[in-house]
Amino acid sequence: MSDTLLIRGGTVVNADRESRADVLCVGGLITAVAPDLEAPVGATVVDAGGQYVMPGGIDPHTHMQLPFMGTVTRDDFYSGTAAALAGGTTTIIDFVIPDPKQPLMDAYRTWRGWAEKAASDHAFHVAITWWDDSVHADMGTLVREEGVNSFKHFMAYKNAIMCDDETLVRSFRRALELGAMPTVHAENGELVFLLQQEVKARGVTGPEGHPLSRPPAVEAEAAQRAIAIADVLNVPIYVVHVSCAESAEAIARARARGQRVFGEVLAGHLLIDDSVYRHPDFAFAAAHVMSPPFREKTHQEALWRGLQAGHLHTTATDHCSFCAEQKAMGRLDFGKIPNGTGGVEERLTVLWDAGVNSGRLTPSEFVAITSANAARLFNLYPRKGLVAPGADADLVVWDPAAHHTISVASQHSRGDFNLFEGRPVVGRPSHTVSQGRVVCALGDLRAERGAGRYLKRPPFGPQ
Amino acid sequence: MSDTLLIRGGTVVNADRESRADVLCVGGLITAVAPDLEAPVGATVVDAGGQYVMPGGIDPHTHMQLPFMGTVTRDDFYSGTAAALAGGTTTIIDFVIPDPKQPLMDAYRTWRGWAEKAASDHAFHVAITWWDDSVHADMGTLVREEGVNSFKHFMAYKNAIMCDDETLVRSFRRALELGAMPTVHAENGELVFLLQQEVKARGVTGPEGHPLSRPPAVEAEAAQRAIAIADVLNVPIYVVHVSCAESAEAIARARARGQRVFGEVLAGHLLIDDSVYRHPDFAFAAAHVMSPPFREKTHQEALWRGLQAGHLHTTATDHCSFCAEQKAMGRLDFGKIPNGTGGVEERLTVLWDAGVNSGRLTPSEFVAITSANAARLFNLYPRKGLVAPGADADLVVWDPAAHHTISVASQHSRGDFNLFEGRPVVGRPSHTVSQGRVVCALGDLRAERGAGRYLKRPPFGPQ
Amino acid sequence: MSDTLLIRGGTVVNADRESRADVLCVGGLITAVAPDLEAPVGATVVDAGGQYVMPGGIDPHTHMQLPFMGTVTRDDFYSGTAAALAGGTTTIIDFVIPDPKQPLMDAYRTWRGWAEKAASDHAFHVAITWWDDSVHADMGTLVREEGVNSFKHFMAYKNAIMCDDETLVRSFRRALELGAMPTVHAENGELVFLLQQEVKARGVTGPEGHPLSRPPAVEAEAAQRAIAIADVLNVPIYVVHVSCAESAEAIARARARGQRVFGEVLAGHLLIDDSVYRHPDFAFAAAHVMSPPFREKTHQEALWRGLQAGHLHTTATDHCSFCAEQKAMGRLDFGKIPNGTGGVEERLTVLWDAGVNSGRLTPSEFVAITSANAARLFNLYPRKGLVAPGADADLVVWDPAAHHTISVASQHSRGDFNLFEGRPVVGRPSHTVSQGRVVCALGDLRAERGAGRYLKRPPFGPQ
Amino acid sequence: MSDTLLIRGGTVVNADRESRADVLCVGGLITAVAPDLEAPVGATVVDAGGQYVMPGGIDPHTHMQLPFMGTVTRDDFYSGTAAALAGGTTTIIDFVIPDPKQPLMDAYRTWRGWAEKAASDHAFHVAITWWDDSVHADMGTLVREEGVNSFKHFMAYKNAIMCDDETLVRSFRRALELGAMPTVHAENGELVFLLQQEVKARGVTGPEGHPLSRPPAVEAEAAQRAIAIADVLNVPIYVVHVSCAESAEAIARARARGQRVFGEVLAGHLLIDDSVYRHPDFAFAAAHVMSPPFREKTHQEALWRGLQAGHLHTTATDHCSFCAEQKAMGRLDFGKIPNGTGGVEERLTVLWDAGVNSGRLTPSEFVAITSANAARLFNLYPRKGLVAPGADADLVVWDPAAHHTISVASQHSRGDFNLFEGRPVVGRPSHTVSQGRVVCALGDLRAERGAGRYLKRPPFGPQ
Ligand SMILES: [Zn+2]
Ligand SMILES: [Zn+2]
Ligand SMILES: [Zn+2]
Ligand SMILES: [Zn+2]
Ligand SMILES: [Zn+2]
Ligand SMILES: [Zn+2]
Ligand SMILES: [Zn+2]
Ligand SMILES: [Zn+2]
Repeated sequence: MSDTLLIRGGTVVNADRESRADVLCVGGLITAVAPDLEAPVGATVVDAGGQYVMPGGIDPHTHMQLPFMGTVTRDDFYSGTAAALAGGTTTIIDFVIPDPKQPLMDAYRTWRGWAEKAASDHAFHVAITWWDDSVHADMGTLVREEGVNSFKHFMAYKNAIMCDDETLVRSFRRALELGAMPTVHAENGELVFLLQQEVKARGVTGPEGHPLSRPPAVEAEAAQRAIAIADVLNVPIYVVHVSCAESAEAIARARARGQRVFGEVLAGHLLIDDSVYRHPDFAFAAAHVMSPPFREKTHQEALWRGLQAGHLHTTATDHCSFCAEQKAMGRLDFGKIPNGTGGVEERLTVLWDAGVNSGRLTPSEFVAITSANAARLFNLYPRKGLVAPGADADLVVWDPAAHHTISVASQHSRGDFNLFEGRPVVGRPSHTVSQGRVVCALGDLRAERGAGRYLKRPPFGPQ
Repeated sequence: MSDTLLIRGGTVVNADRESRADVLCVGGLITAVAPDLEAPVGATVVDAGGQYVMPGGIDPHTHMQLPFMGTVTRDDFYSGTAAALAGGTTTIIDFVIPDPKQPLMDAYRTWRGWAEKAASDHAFHVAITWWDDSVHADMGTLVREEGVNSFKHFMAYKNAIMCDDETLVRSFRRALELGAMPTVHAENGELVFLLQQEVKARGVTGPEGHPLSRPPAVEAEAAQRAIAIADVLNVPIYVVHVSCAESAEAIARARARGQRVFGEVLAGHLLIDDSVYRHPDFAFAAAHVMSPPFREKTHQEALWRGLQAGHLHTTATDHCSFCAEQKAMGRLDFGKIPNGTGGVEERLTVLWDAGVNSGRLTPSEFVAITSANAARLFNLYPRKGLVAPGADADLVVWDPAAHHTISVASQHSRGDFNLFEGRPVVGRPSHTVSQGRVVCALGDLRAERGAGRYLKRPPFGPQ
Repeated sequence: MSDTLLIRGGTVVNADRESRADVLCVGGLITAVAPDLEAPVGATVVDAGGQYVMPGGIDPHTHMQLPFMGTVTRDDFYSGTAAALAGGTTTIIDFVIPDPKQPLMDAYRTWRGWAEKAASDHAFHVAITWWDDSVHADMGTLVREEGVNSFKHFMAYKNAIMCDDETLVRSFRRALELGAMPTVHAENGELVFLLQQEVKARGVTGPEGHPLSRPPAVEAEAAQRAIAIADVLNVPIYVVHVSCAESAEAIARARARGQRVFGEVLAGHLLIDDSVYRHPDFAFAAAHVMSPPFREKTHQEALWRGLQAGHLHTTATDHCSFCAEQKAMGRLDFGKIPNGTGGVEERLTVLWDAGVNSGRLTPSEFVAITSANAARLFNLYPRKGLVAPGADADLVVWDPAAHHTISVASQHSRGDFNLFEGRPVVGRPSHTVSQGRVVCALGDLRAERGAGRYLKRPPFGPQ
Repeated sequence: MSDTLLIRGGTVVNADRESRADVLCVGGLITAVAPDLEAPVGATVVDAGGQYVMPGGIDPHTHMQLPFMGTVTRDDFYSGTAAALAGGTTTIIDFVIPDPKQPLMDAYRTWRGWAEKAASDHAFHVAITWWDDSVHADMGTLVREEGVNSFKHFMAYKNAIMCDDETLVRSFRRALELGAMPTVHAENGELVFLLQQEVKARGVTGPEGHPLSRPPAVEAEAAQRAIAIADVLNVPIYVVHVSCAESAEAIARARARGQRVFGEVLAGHLLIDDSVYRHPDFAFAAAHVMSPPFREKTHQEALWRGLQAGHLHTTATDHCSFCAEQKAMGRLDFGKIPNGTGGVEERLTVLWDAGVNSGRLTPSEFVAITSANAARLFNLYPRKGLVAPGADADLVVWDPAAHHTISVASQHSRGDFNLFEGRPVVGRPSHTVSQGRVVCALGDLRAERGAGRYLKRPPFGPQ
């Protein structure tokens, strides 16, 4: 029968342990995890000998099909999720970003509509970019009826989607009431605004000005502020794309007080440093423009250590695929370069290579930071993030011995650039399974437009 | 059939999640965890409605039947493990403590012999109290043949079992080679020795002198030293009975560097402060003499925060039941009061009450710090510490609504004192299951002498 | 001759050392500091045998004659500075606080007018409570022409004098340009606003609600934010009235990075805890209402440690003498109790008693934190804050053996309450010398209305 | 008259302030510091126009004429102090290092004899390398009769002069009793011993093995241990040659608790990194072998920050001039290379250039870390370390505009290597004054053999 899949002979890795076991999937669910399972008649059988069988990756931070000044990012929800599946990621959590004054429910419905074409399961964080009573009410509707249990706050992007402290305080307070998780993009927007002007006033208009206008202290300030507000209001908080040692330390300090603070790291920040912005080719440098920017190399070690120590919890990509033409809008002013890079397809492979092969992380820790922790924090667990009977059959069969070199030439994303171009890596998915179906096998991508489901995520705590 | 048990209607709690499920145990193992299981014919059925079903507690730090100056502690391996079972703890890890110059294997066999009467499963850490080539060799034998994967080092107790830095360095180095975990009792023995003399020279000879001779800085120094040595040698390390903020911070700092450091907290240190030593009744004060001593109240919050933040990992008791007569050996000199307190039976209930009922910990976090983390760190997982098919059927059915008041009058330990005397608590085991057998039901203890098995714990890493 | 004074036989204490020496003052200046000086003919001679001779105290944070809702604080510039002189403080730095939209120069001239009656030398910080081009220009005028080298920013008091981040950033930037020191009252005004509402919504309307609405995290957040902004803009910063461990730690962390951050502590925060707000007598509790509020006792130790370690630098009082009738405006709502307490007269004696007599501070450290450091940070040094030839003859002769008990009954301030009522202290001034004149001798206060001079403070750095 | 000197037209810099003033010296003492002093008849006049006049440098850590395996370092007390004077340093504090079992007084007298030829004033720390009752007694004699107020403890150099914890504890305790300052060379000797063996076992025998055998954690452990012991015993402590971020942080943490801990940094550690040990020329690499070794570049910033923040206090050189021939004793084994480098002549100029010219330090801070702080900590102040009437006339006239390039070719030390070879620096002494005599003028060194005096340093606190 076509809805039955047996993955045989691998080592099953969960966040808490590894064991030799076969995995049986029926009707989109895992039904058995045990050694030496017999293949049901008609079952598809995947040989995982010498390989790991892990929960499919969850990327908790992507922007597919993001509208920007009359254009839109290159990857829509179909191509973006297809690329994700090719790389072993079977769930994304994207962002609904209302314009200031736009009703939240309108924006939410728009994004849901765009996402109907998704090839993988997906969910949404909703951004709070302004405040009035309707926002307060819509947050309730989103949590109670739409399965949204996390809200995003941009502390940067002054005169656009920046959230002032008053809104931050009110929204965090409301999230607590609803059992939802507030999340923040932590950069002090006033400082960025001033520094951009000053850097340009000094005659620096190219991409090399981008990191100068957003130094680590700008991020750390905002992270500390958001954490302090959450502490006072007694609500948990999740800091997206922690990029520097100072922010990681702010999180560690808060956690050491017992506060429930969680941190996300992007694959890019773990592996790429700020020298890219000083590359003479504008297109190359601009392709790396994202916020927070890549940092001096020493910060990478701090981020890895945060993952090892357990004060950083998840890894993501902030996948947002602007092409060279779009990036060129900022040719004369780095402040106008659209912010965003890719990576949804490469995240697992680069983190395995730099994390597990290097000895920094065990395979179980890899599962924790690429899948299980995100599932737990955003209440998708144990449906997602776990290889166990009853869970969704979203799996990645991982070949730890496969060598390849990353290149834009072979990527599935529609972006025209690859952050990890030319990087040789060891370890990659041999098969990706979504809803019990093999959607990628030895490089043969069989993503299906619209096959992905919207995931409702219940709020936390007693309602 | 007598070897089949169905626990029906409870909420199964593991370290990573909770879910409503029944638990079926056959032949001493868990065979199914799922909702609405049918009871096999002849199965014993336990009704867990309104209750939690959790992995049995693991106490990674006990001293049953400890010899001391011609006498021995009151609880032997039978009474001590029986008391443990009464309180929901189904596994203990005790200590083999060779005298200086005594061959390790001799001491190991002696302790194994004593433990044959144990009612619960058990394992041993082995202490390294001296060094020569035979110790080096015996460590290898213990790891490879006897299933010992952890070694203990006393940094205090000068002129007795104290391990100098040279031995510490050599033993840590050897543990690394063998894939075993070094553990330390962290107190600077030289400082304790000097302070004891000085405190007595000031005329303070009663139990109130005990904490004065072992202030937090004495512990923190040793913890930092052991952690630094482990860091330099690149070996993980486990610090037993972390009792003060300063030690907890030393561990947190090391973990923030990515170092693999683990910390254990005793139930007593979480709940009792040093005012007990100033009690006018010698017997009461002396009954609390253990090392490190109970601390000023502010330290308790630091320890709870360490458990919440994840830089402290396990909870234990250091159960070591000297009676009033034995304690009286130090009537004229606090330095001669035998060190030790009880608690193996009360640990789960006091931690649930002060940890979960207070909102500090979720039930899953409770399972982590009372069972799963110890299982993982000492390589008993997933056989122990997990409710899942294939695991040992060691379980506790936990009634979160049961009220009782702790008292020596109703304890099963043979000790004559209870650390938590008079404390009202909410939440306690209704049933304890060991090897698939109900060994305690609603206060009816059915512990069986000699039923406990010695657990071999394989070393870590590739052999 | 009446303008010559010889202080004979004392121990001269400066911030860097102590020595036995006489001090000769002529024409308002110190002219000699050496052993065994001969008394010029006609000189007044003060016998300082067995006493210390120290630079007169500098209180860098007072609010004399502060207007408030149609009334004004009880101490005007005459009575306030007279009280200061009685207590050994010979210089105050007060605050010009423009209303939002009020031109800075107008407010400055108003305060200068009020201060003409001052009995002691004095200077002004000017608050930046709003922003436009005129503020930018007036900051320049104040620095270049009026000898103002420090500006104050209130991060609390929403809907009144609170300074938003945009103003903060612009003003700090301007201060850097001018060589002036930015200072901040660090509390997050948005959080205070929300918490006040929530505390009152819970039915807590009395003074006990005051500390609940301004917890330490609210202060620490603002301190960290101001420090981070200063760091990014590369300007030094001075945090007024640091009241809690968390703020002190934020300063210590920044200083450990090499940042030039300075912290001020109030005498009250070092000695009084938040239990006062729970006193059943409204008048008593309300008399203690100031912001930041008094804290739990453990914070006091952190503040003392900051002074000992050198990451806190000055001590002040925030002297602001509202009387019981004025405090009663908040009888039904703690948020309406005017904020302020006294202390300008008691600061030196309580700090000597609790700081030097306790062994926490040496006499030289006492001089540093009560006088020399403030003089250095606000560029009054070595004219003020030093006993050396050429300096102003502002001195305090300190009798370390004098016992007295503080009481409102014997104070010179016109306030009707004394923060330190009933406190027995050892050590107090026997004589205060201002401009070479004995203005207080053995309790006989001879303060002269209008004798005080306005002190111009040049900016820092090359102009 | 030949004993009168007027330094005219300079800017006098003390640790607390700068001012334009002339300095008059008579009979070896400073007698006046004031603007526009008249030159006494016959006075030598030095024109300091455009220059700074500062207290002569104090190097609190040198080893002149150190015996080593039958040879001795190249600089004896004459040539070493002459080189110091050439560089603006007018006082050194050297070390008496008894062999284990050698009576302290014997060693002390030997060193005093060697030092009779010194050209500059000097004092001694005495090392405690072993313990018995005679050591206890001799410490008392040294403090009470010989003006020694500091004792040194080597925590490294196992099987030689290493001091075990028992001796450390006893000696610190004794120092407290005597009012003397304990100091430590902080490296864990057991770890160094093991790592040296392991590094050599891996086949690394050249100088590149030196830093591998003494990583930062080895130093930080010992620093923390010594600080903790001092904390428990309530004695201040001075950590010599702090070389890494981790040690600096240990000091900062202790100071933040209010503990009186002081740190010294060597000029070399501030400016030189560990790449020198990997230089292919053995002689070059070996010339840099000292302990603790030079570190990765990032540590330098941490040390500068410590000086800026005030948790590191003094700068020194550990001047110990082994020549190439002596260094060659370790050609086959880096562990046998005699440890030591030079620098006593270059310290001031390299620190001015890298510290003041870079904007890290003000001139006053430069005086603090090169002279005044050492004088205060070792009780030479205000006789040394201060430009004020009554102080010794030990001065350096500093030309901030002078350019030169450092080279062994032009040094006065008899060593055959210069740590700072080829470094261009701006700022150097134009004149050095010792005991009121110009001993170096525009490069013309007039050091006089035996002119230096032994300085008795009284103990701290009431005796
Ligand atoms: Zn973002
Ligand atoms: Zn984003
Ligand atoms: Zn122990
Ligand atoms: Zn124990
Ligand atoms: Zn204020
Ligand atoms: Zn104020
Ligand atoms: Zn040394
Ligand atoms: Zn040395």
